[in-house]
Amino acid sequence: MEPIYLDYNATTPVDPLVVEELLPYLREGFGNPSSSHPYGKKAKEGVETARKRVAGLLDCDPAEIVFTSGGTEANNQALIGTAMANREKGNHIITTAIEHPAVLNPLHWLEGQGFAVTYLPVDGYGQVDPQMIRQAITDKTILISVMHANNEVGTIQPLAEIGAIAREHGILFHTDAAQSVGKIPTRVDELRVDLLSIAGHKLYAPKGIGALYVRRGVKIDSYLHGAGHEGGRRAGTENVPYMAALGKAAELAAEHLATESEHVLSLRERFHDRLKELVGDVLLNGHPTSRLPNTLNVSFAGVNGADLLARTPEIAASTGSACHDGSCELSGVLKAMGLSPEQGFGAVRFSLGRLTTVEELDRAAEIVAARVKELRGIRGGVSHNHVQTGLSALASCAG
Amino acid sequence: MEPIYLDYNATTPVDPLVVEELLPYLREGFGNPSSSHPYGKKAKEGVETARKRVAGLLDCDPAEIVFTSGGTEANNQALIGTAMANREKGNHIITTAIEHPAVLNPLHWLEGQGFAVTYLPVDGYGQVDPQMIRQAITDKTILISVMHANNEVGTIQPLAEIGAIAREHGILFHTDAAQSVGKIPTRVDELRVDLLSIAGHKLYAPKGIGALYVRRGVKIDSYLHGAGHEGGRRAGTENVPYMAALGKAAELAAEHLATESEHVLSLRERFHDRLKELVGDVLLNGHPTSRLPNTLNVSFAGVNGADLLARTPEIAASTGSACHDGSCELSGVLKAMGLSPEQGFGAVRFSLGRLTTVEELDRAAEIVAARVKELRGIRGGVSHNHVQTGLSALASCAG
Repeated sequence: MEPIYLDYNATTPVDPLVVEELLPYLREGFGNPSSSHPYGKKAKEGVETARKRVAGLLDCDPAEIVFTSGGTEANNQALIGTAMANREKGNHIITTAIEHPAVLNPLHWLEGQGFAVTYLPVDGYGQVDPQMIRQAITDKTILISVMHANNEVGTIQPLAEIGAIAREHGILFHTDAAQSVGKIPTRVDELRVDLLSIAGHKLYAPKGIGALYVRRGVKIDSYLHGAGHEGGRRAGTENVPYMAALGKAAELAAEHLATESEHVLSLRERFHDRLKELVGDVLLNGHPTSRLPNTLNVSFAGVNGADLLARTPEIAASTGSACHDGSCELSGVLKAMGLSPEQGFGAVRFSLGRLTTVEELDRAAEIVAARVKELRGIRGGVSHNHVQTGLSALASCAG
Repeated sequence: MEPIYLDYNATTPVDPLVVEELLPYLREGFGNPSSSHPYGKKAKEGVETARKRVAGLLDCDPAEIVFTSGGTEANNQALIGTAMANREKGNHIITTAIEHPAVLNPLHWLEGQGFAVTYLPVDGYGQVDPQMIRQAITDKTILISVMHANNEVGTIQPLAEIGAIAREHGILFHTDAAQSVGKIPTRVDELRVDLLSIAGHKLYAPKGIGALYVRRGVKIDSYLHGAGHEGGRRAGTENVPYMAALGKAAELAAEHLATESEHVLSLRERFHDRLKELVGDVLLNGHPTSRLPNTLNVSFAGVNGADLLARTPEIAASTGSACHDGSCELSGVLKAMGLSPEQGFGAVRFSLGRLTTVEELDRAAEIVAARVKELRGIRGGVSHNHVQTGLSALASCAG
């Protein structure tokens, strides 16, 4: 039997309706949208329908959507593309300590090109204080980038407040919305953002497609240089099937967002309650209320998260954040939130989604509770044994 | 009835076996390869199988393959990634005047960053002289980039000779092999290249996937910055379905290359002969022998190519090169080859592929011949009327 999938923040399955939407473009609709014959025209229509649907979810103009190969490329283009295009205005960028590597690493690259980046701290819930952003602004600040919702703990940032401050100062405001799009409302005017990154595979579309919302009038360089696709803003022959997929996924999200997020929230709360009943001593990581409805990141006192998951093959979940290529250390997000190493290495992220059922969650809660008790028995009270817990997490995660 | 598809150089259909290979990864195999649970492991296996297959076609080590979102990204990474990483060695790059925009535009970007680029001319067949490359080398030269086969006329460049010169001087050698991979042999040691770009959608895989071969030891920066995917060489959650697709497409190409290219060549020659018989006065654009087996770029004296195709809805072909977003002018390739405006605007590219049949080609030759005769009748000899021909091409192409 397949493990119970509670790792929707790592990636979602592709919705069957999305697969259905993209398949014709892998078959008879294979044309190159740049071709002027009917094969090309049909493909181009597919792209433009998709663009409208993505724009619908964000409540923006279709011309403000640039398709990319995913969230990472969207972030690279948003950050490097605006920084390079607005260089003459200033070289200072403000962000937070808990951004995804797909934001932090383009910013590190920009630091190598003469830009200065301020990384603001967050509170114990993982939230940034808009007033700290205001204080960090200098006359060289050209860009603020704050994620919408955190991938590890689900904490939602006060974007509209930050956006208001950015506008007051005439500074561009970008958000990495990879984790929020499709889970909570992401209307660009309400969020007061100028740039917003989408990752298809967090939204029931495939991995390998994303989009960048670029508010009309924002000065931004192309990131992939080549022929004049996407109105000259992103070169590369259009991935028509996946664009159609992202369009359909956006349409489904727009249609079902309210009911789906309410449903997922009630499932998550039930799961959380069950865990507390069965295990006791469950520490919540992240904001108690301003949090993605599908995300539950918890630490079980005295238990290492990686150990727990390694002993729980019936459940697919994640230790705080995915480890990349076997390298794994205490997550920067949990560190920035000021968690103790024990609580940090204890963190397990359960993230729910469209296909999650009550039955799965009830079963998962019982399995997790049983394993936590086993581990607590083995360890015989590890609450004062930080170092060993930490090392154990490293070993388990790298394996 | 669908038009006869003779535009394989613009994009190929996706091979049904390739679709079959990718579908499981859009369905149950949807995991994130970075996840350590079974969903992730299954996806990771898919990626590594695909990597081996691509490496098989190029006869290199799988670790030397970096998956990208397409040929454009592969070229951006190859050029910008090596230029930035080897900046301390020098700032001079050599290329040709007939490269694809996905090579020329990253090079233009590098010129803005302080690099100097030499664009070498080609002869009337579209070939570059390796001795001109030797002469262009300075002690600042760090990179040579020459396409393997031209997209518009199919002319194949003498890569092995150029590669030998590059090695003699310790200079990196990149080739954009988007048009050649799968059509002619592309073993990296035989071509003596250090970097080679692949575009999936020219090879019966979908649009939106590509790969970059990077010879072991070549110093290259990551282009998309983020988490440590692809061994730290390309950030972004892996597009597992399309990687599997490219792997399968590479395997099919490796298996059938010899017979398929011979078959396509015989079809093309038959088509060319029929056109000459029926029309007369058919000018071949490109090299008579050192040319992709599937590509036939011809001008019919006194006839504008865009006019001809506009009046030939039964056939999907291309006027020299695809126009992007409605902008179209005499192709840089044909200009660099020294074609007269009349011959240049007259150029029509027929490109054949795996599904092309004798029957289609015989029918296409008759249709083309009839339309050429009609147009020659209408124009009554336009051979001295360059300007009108040119304008007409622009109008037809932009429409």
